[in-house]
Amino acid sequence: MEFSSKLLENAVNEMSQLPGIGKRTALRLVLNLLRQPKEQTLNLAKALSTMRSDIKFCKSCHNISDNDLCEICINPHRTDSLICVVEDIRDVMAIENTSSFRGLYHVLGGKISPMDGVGPNELNIQSLVDKVEQGKIKEIIFALGSTMEGDTTNFYIYKQIQDFDVVTSTISRGISVGNELEYTDEVTLGRSIINRIPFEISLKS
Amino acid sequence: MEFSSKLLENAVNEMSQLPGIGKRTALRLVLNLLRQPKEQTLNLAKALSTMRSDIKFCKSCHNISDNDLCEICINPHRTDSLICVVEDIRDVMAIENTSSFRGLYHVLGGKISPMDGVGPNELNIQSLVDKVEQGKIKEIIFALGSTMEGDTTNFYIYKQIQDFDVVTSTISRGISVGNELEYTDEVTLGRSIINRIPFEISLKS
Repeated sequence: MEFSSKLLENAVNEMSQLPGIGKRTALRLVLNLLRQPKEQTLNLAKALSTMRSDIKFCKSCHNISDNDLCEICINPHRTDSLICVVEDIRDVMAIENTSSFRGLYHVLGGKISPMDGVGPNELNIQSLVDKVEQGKIKEIIFALGSTMEGDTTNFYIYKQIQDFDVVTSTISRGISVGNELEYTDEVTLGRSIINRIPFEISLKS
Repeated sequence: MEFSSKLLENAVNEMSQLPGIGKRTALRLVLNLLRQPKEQTLNLAKALSTMRSDIKFCKSCHNISDNDLCEICINPHRTDSLICVVEDIRDVMAIENTSSFRGLYHVLGGKISPMDGVGPNELNIQSLVDKVEQGKIKEIIFALGSTMEGDTTNFYIYKQIQDFDVVTSTISRGISVGNELEYTDEVTLGRSIINRIPFEISLKS
């Protein structure tokens, strides 16, 4: 791609570093910014640089926060002995939207994935083990995605904490609510039979 | 969507102003920036704001340029009496890639589209008419997309300049090179028969 302007080329190149944004899409986005009022671009640039420079991570759960401790961790109405282990802030937001969890979170910041060069040391695992060692936690719920990386991460953490007095569980996997059996993949369907739940319990959820 | 951080929320909101980027995609992009080195975000922010503040448009053809006149307009080897009318810089880049045009361009900055509130006054049409009035132009090629808006824009400009001594043409529409007839839509196929070209000429192109 040949550009008639270095400034444009530079902006397109930086924009196309974002995941899933190729050169063509980046050019479309940048040209759109040029058609909009100047303030929009300046606001975007300022919001991004301020965020990247000033954002904090909660010292307890590692969730993104504007303060040292996040709103969830300082909420006195939440059970601090129940911890839900998630990959990133999107999972926190998704679970918060269900209003079905009143414990605290622990944000790992990723999943163990040797293919992508992510080992246990790149993740916030040690601080979780420390919390368990201090005896503050009664139950840990693993809520990572149902992938090989998620399962590996669950297992790694489980091995680290299995000798302590803490209950561990994982979110249930099964057919999605509203789905027909015939459209469910075999592995999920097989697991949903193995992990079947008493009917009386299913009535309550 | 509820965010645990105002800085994050602000960045996501600004990012989701871009066309085709919803809140979810914006969050994914912003979280990716947080995982990358700080410089990436700062470079992106700087590239965008510098571009928006400092970019110029060629005073002659309205193409994006770093100088008062763009590289194409100042190139002495190009025919300045032949003008190709296009919508935006992407079209200039697309035509330049074919290496089949050695005249100059005139970038309208859009197409007439009453539905989107774009009238002739929002586009760089008057400056084209001025050039024609000054007798500098011998031929104008309309190279807008083959849509209702494109046809309307072509016709509007044509009416403005038809009394002057200037040849007008439009890029040919027909079946794409490499395409089978059976997969070509009816309108295109019908037009390609009406606008058939002498076989001897087709041999040369």
